[in-house]
Amino acid sequence: MEKEIVKVGMLGMGTVGGGVAELLKRNSRQIEEKTETEFSLVKILVRDPSKQRSVDLEDYILTSDPDDIIEDPSISVVIEVIGGIEPAREYISRALQNGKYVITANKDLMATHGEELLKVARENKRNIFYEGSVGGGIPIIRPLRHSLVADQVKRIVGIVNGTTNYILTKMVEDDISFEEALSRARELGFAEADPSNDIEGLDASYKLIIMSGLAFGCNIDPSQVYVEGIGAVTREDIAYAREIGYVIKLVAIGEMLPEGLALRVHPTLVSAEHPLASVSNEFNAIFVEGDAVGEVMFYGRGAGALPTASAVLADMAEALRCIRRQAVNGFIEIAKKEIPLLSINRLNSRFYLRFLADDRPGVFAALANAFGDEDVSLDMVIQKRRVNSTAEIVLVTHMVEEDAFNRALEKVVSLPAIRPNPSKFRLLG
Amino acid sequence: MEKEIVKVGMLGMGTVGGGVAELLKRNSRQIEEKTETEFSLVKILVRDPSKQRSVDLEDYILTSDPDDIIEDPSISVVIEVIGGIEPAREYISRALQNGKYVITANKDLMATHGEELLKVARENKRNIFYEGSVGGGIPIIRPLRHSLVADQVKRIVGIVNGTTNYILTKMVEDDISFEEALSRARELGFAEADPSNDIEGLDASYKLIIMSGLAFGCNIDPSQVYVEGIGAVTREDIAYAREIGYVIKLVAIGEMLPEGLALRVHPTLVSAEHPLASVSNEFNAIFVEGDAVGEVMFYGRGAGALPTASAVLADMAEALRCIRRQAVNGFIEIAKKEIPLLSINRLNSRFYLRFLADDRPGVFAALANAFGDEDVSLDMVIQKRRVNSTAEIVLVTHMVEEDAFNRALEKVVSLPAIRPNPSKFRLLG
Repeated sequence: MEKEIVKVGMLGMGTVGGGVAELLKRNSRQIEEKTETEFSLVKILVRDPSKQRSVDLEDYILTSDPDDIIEDPSISVVIEVIGGIEPAREYISRALQNGKYVITANKDLMATHGEELLKVARENKRNIFYEGSVGGGIPIIRPLRHSLVADQVKRIVGIVNGTTNYILTKMVEDDISFEEALSRARELGFAEADPSNDIEGLDASYKLIIMSGLAFGCNIDPSQVYVEGIGAVTREDIAYAREIGYVIKLVAIGEMLPEGLALRVHPTLVSAEHPLASVSNEFNAIFVEGDAVGEVMFYGRGAGALPTASAVLADMAEALRCIRRQAVNGFIEIAKKEIPLLSINRLNSRFYLRFLADDRPGVFAALANAFGDEDVSLDMVIQKRRVNSTAEIVLVTHMVEEDAFNRALEKVVSLPAIRPNPSKFRLLG
Repeated sequence: MEKEIVKVGMLGMGTVGGGVAELLKRNSRQIEEKTETEFSLVKILVRDPSKQRSVDLEDYILTSDPDDIIEDPSISVVIEVIGGIEPAREYISRALQNGKYVITANKDLMATHGEELLKVARENKRNIFYEGSVGGGIPIIRPLRHSLVADQVKRIVGIVNGTTNYILTKMVEDDISFEEALSRARELGFAEADPSNDIEGLDASYKLIIMSGLAFGCNIDPSQVYVEGIGAVTREDIAYAREIGYVIKLVAIGEMLPEGLALRVHPTLVSAEHPLASVSNEFNAIFVEGDAVGEVMFYGRGAGALPTASAVLADMAEALRCIRRQAVNGFIEIAKKEIPLLSINRLNSRFYLRFLADDRPGVFAALANAFGDEDVSLDMVIQKRRVNSTAEIVLVTHMVEEDAFNRALEKVVSLPAIRPNPSKFRLLG
């Protein structure tokens, strides 16, 4: 074992930072044994070094000046757990330029500036590790980087946001509304004070971008990803979905189609038989389809202080091994190709549609014509009578291009007998 | 990119070897891009170089002399897909001594001689990679080696044998006997001509030993692992299990208990709610519980030519990166501790017991006494009347030590009213 102790600095001391400090207290010795490298977390960047904390930090130097870490030449590894884009981006970039290995769990940053930071890492013969940015402690980045190297990934389908999965699970289990489920999630700490990034699907889209970058070897413009949140999912839709053998989940899908790459996040009807259907509460799961490996799935707790700290420290261990083995820049990702994404309008899906209609003769014929005119063929029709001579109609289509479906839908809602604001969701194909 | 082409030799050309050759034809370029290393499979050891084959091998030199590969100093990486202990052990050992990186999917060998071969690798500053030895293409060895470094693994629970899982799934779905399900598995290629290693649990125990070695950092004597196959599982037991909300699976369990390490493979009643319960047919899944990450599960096709080739070539890519980065011996495992295993007699389980009894007064009182004397408390009792005044009784116990349960069982079967040969299975706790 080399005698020199590798020094580590950490930027930030929030939830994940607290988890890292706690886990280091518990399992430092084991990490040293497994990496055959002695290390020490020496400095932590905090806003207020004098603040009382629940985690015992007396072993560490607390500083409010980032340069104390970024510009300290004795520090070889920097863990970034501040979150957000700036100043995290700048700190990481400078740390890499100063020859440090960087570990981050920052999905916003890696999804929007990942390629830029990896380029800085390559230029400086260092590396940036970000296992914790997707799926908390679930190993998914490392398998995509190292395990599926010989596979052409065809598809990634993931439940990657714990907040929305918790809400949708409670809506199903307890037959409650979106609002009630959200307030329960808040009470239990599964939703943040402002949960809009989760609810609107943005968080899931960031994780999809990071995974797709690795799986498909491409650099993705976040603004090109189709993102639809779960705010429009109702108890009625959940009940109908169940009636026809489906569960509604917020699903992130990345697919390499013959025409190009398609990335989308939206509420999705998943067949009850599919392994993703039984992923409940705050759990995450990522389904990867490769041309050789077939289908593999990774499942676990997608967030939380200790699970994410587990991923962060596994990354730190990899950095320690790089340093110990003098593997110049570790296993770094090659530069990614720019691939334009397919527009959602060109993608094919099966659609679920629910709407109210006047219960009078001729409505079904008019519906049939509207769909028939656009070659949208129907797989399933359920009609139930409601009060006041209003019928509730649920349709499921066969595979159809989004554009064609939308044209048919426009015709349908323009029919005088059809009430406005239908529920529309896609099925997992 | 370095100009030198890394030369690879392969020992064996069976099912997995054919998968490797096929996948190389398809995805070699991608592996070269991702590793930034040019490589070439140059020589393959076969029994009969003149034999006609379904895979096109004209790009390769076929040889029947292992030394053409093992002693060829221009070859840096050796892939072993012969299987079995000898001569694979000797070939691998010599290849490592000659400074080559070794990739193997050989579970029998890694379970019984893994530590010996890893020692040879360490001594020669090389490495042996064996992702394909457990779970086919499912990434599990690399996550255990690299991703859960900061976790103390508490438990591994896996369905790691596709043949037995296929048989048990068919017995449930089609309500057929073990023999019928086995013969179907044979027809579909999910069972070998001699399936005894699968049926008797030995194959699963090898995979458990390999995973436990990594997860618990110990070297395990295979003869100390408790192994029980699925031959005694009947349709009746499957039906009763379903009635009480369970599915019977062949489960491999490794646990670090306060008293020591326990490893066992046996048919197990798994609650229908547990993620492992929905792992069907030839699929495998491995559930790992860590002190930080919580529960993570890895799921996929546990065998087959291409899935296993996917793992083998991911390992080869890691070897290529080690060579390219001149990372002296790659990421090698540290020497493992010798840990004696706990005997099954000392382990606690919940038990399921089914037997026939004369339907006459006093039987239940006698039963209750037999269990009560050994402090075995019952969680559930089902009694159904059968023909000829015979009752069928199914019991589920609370947690109890194996020894105590067996003593109670002895008393039970010695009762004159109780018929011999009860069915006895454990529940997943």
